[in-house]
Amino acid sequence: MAEENKEELKKKDQEEEVVEELTEEALEDIVEEEVSELDAAVAKAEEWENKFLRISAEIQNIQRRANEERTSILKYRSQDLAKKILPSLDNLERALAVEGLTEDVKKGLEMTRESLINALKEEGVTEVKADGAFDPNFHMAVQTVPADDEHPADHVVQVFQKGYQIHDRILRPAMVVVAQ
Amino acid sequence: MAEENKEELKKKDQEEEVVEELTEEALEDIVEEEVSELDAAVAKAEEWENKFLRISAEIQNIQRRANEERTSILKYRSQDLAKKILPSLDNLERALAVEGLTEDVKKGLEMTRESLINALKEEGVTEVKADGAFDPNFHMAVQTVPADDEHPADHVVQVFQKGYQIHDRILRPAMVVVAQ
Repeated sequence: MAEENKEELKKKDQEEEVVEELTEEALEDIVEEEVSELDAAVAKAEEWENKFLRISAEIQNIQRRANEERTSILKYRSQDLAKKILPSLDNLERALAVEGLTEDVKKGLEMTRESLINALKEEGVTEVKADGAFDPNFHMAVQTVPADDEHPADHVVQVFQKGYQIHDRILRPAMVVVAQ
Repeated sequence: MAEENKEELKKKDQEEEVVEELTEEALEDIVEEEVSELDAAVAKAEEWENKFLRISAEIQNIQRRANEERTSILKYRSQDLAKKILPSLDNLERALAVEGLTEDVKKGLEMTRESLINALKEEGVTEVKADGAFDPNFHMAVQTVPADDEHPADHVVQVFQKGYQIHDRILRPAMVVVAQ
C-alpha cells in the first residue's frame, strides 16, 4: 500500500511539473489544437444538420408520394370488380333481346340492368362513346366496311360489344365496325 | 491614398503588438474560451445527430403506416361497388323465382347470376352464413318464432334476405327469423 501511494505521489509531481513547464509556445500549440478540434466539431454539427434537413425534405416526398398513390388507388378502386361484372351486364342485355319475354320478366331484367349500370356509374364506370370518329384508344375494329355518304372513312359504323371505362382509364374497348 | 496606407500600417503594428503581448495567462484564457466553444459545438453536433436519428425512426413509422393503409384500402377496395351491386343480385334472384319462365330465359338469368356471384367472390365477397346460431354481428332479426325441437332457441329459422361480407367486414347483415 505504502509503495503504491508513493508511486502515485511521484506521478502527480510529474504531472504538475508538466503543467508548470508549459511554455508560451506549448500553449499556442494547445490553442491551435483546440481550434482544429472546434473546426471539426462545427463541421460535424453542420453535417448532421444538413443530413437532418435532407431527410426532412425526403419525408415530405414520401408523404406526397403516399398521398398520390392513395388517391389513385381510391379513384380506380372499383376497376377490378367492374371489369368482372361487365360479362353479367352483357348477359343481361342479351337476355333482354330475346323475343317473347313476358312483361314481368322484361321488367325484372330491365330493373336489374338499370341498377347494375347505376352502381357502376356511381363508381365512375361509364360506357365508351362509339358514335363518331374511330379512336384506337377506345375502340377495337373487328370489321371494316367501305365508307359511303352516311359513313365517312375512319368513323364507327356499328358497335358489336359496348366498351367501358372507369374515369379516364379504359376497362375494355368497344368492339366496332369501321368505315374505310 | 498615402494617408490611408499609413493608417493601415499603424493598425497592423498595433495588432502584432497585441499578439506579442499575449501572456501565458491570456493564452490560458483563450484555451478556456476555445474549450467552451468546442463543448458547445460538440453539443450542437450531438443535438442534430439525435434529431436526425429521431426523424429517421419517424420515416420508418410513416412508411409502415402508409403500407398498412394501402393494404387495407386494397383489401376492401371493392366494398362500395359490391354493396351497390347487391340489389341487382336480389332482383335477379327474384326474377328467377317467377313461375313460368321459358328454359332460355331461365338459363340466361342463371348465367348472369352465376357470373355476378363469381365476380364478387373473386373480390372477396361471400354470402353470410345463416344456418346456425344467431349472431348479431352477421344477422338482423326481423321476426321471432317460438323455439321447438327442430329449431333451438337463438338459432336462425329462415333467411328473408341474404347477407354479404367482404373478407371479414360485413356489407349487409342477413335478415332472418330467429327461434326464441
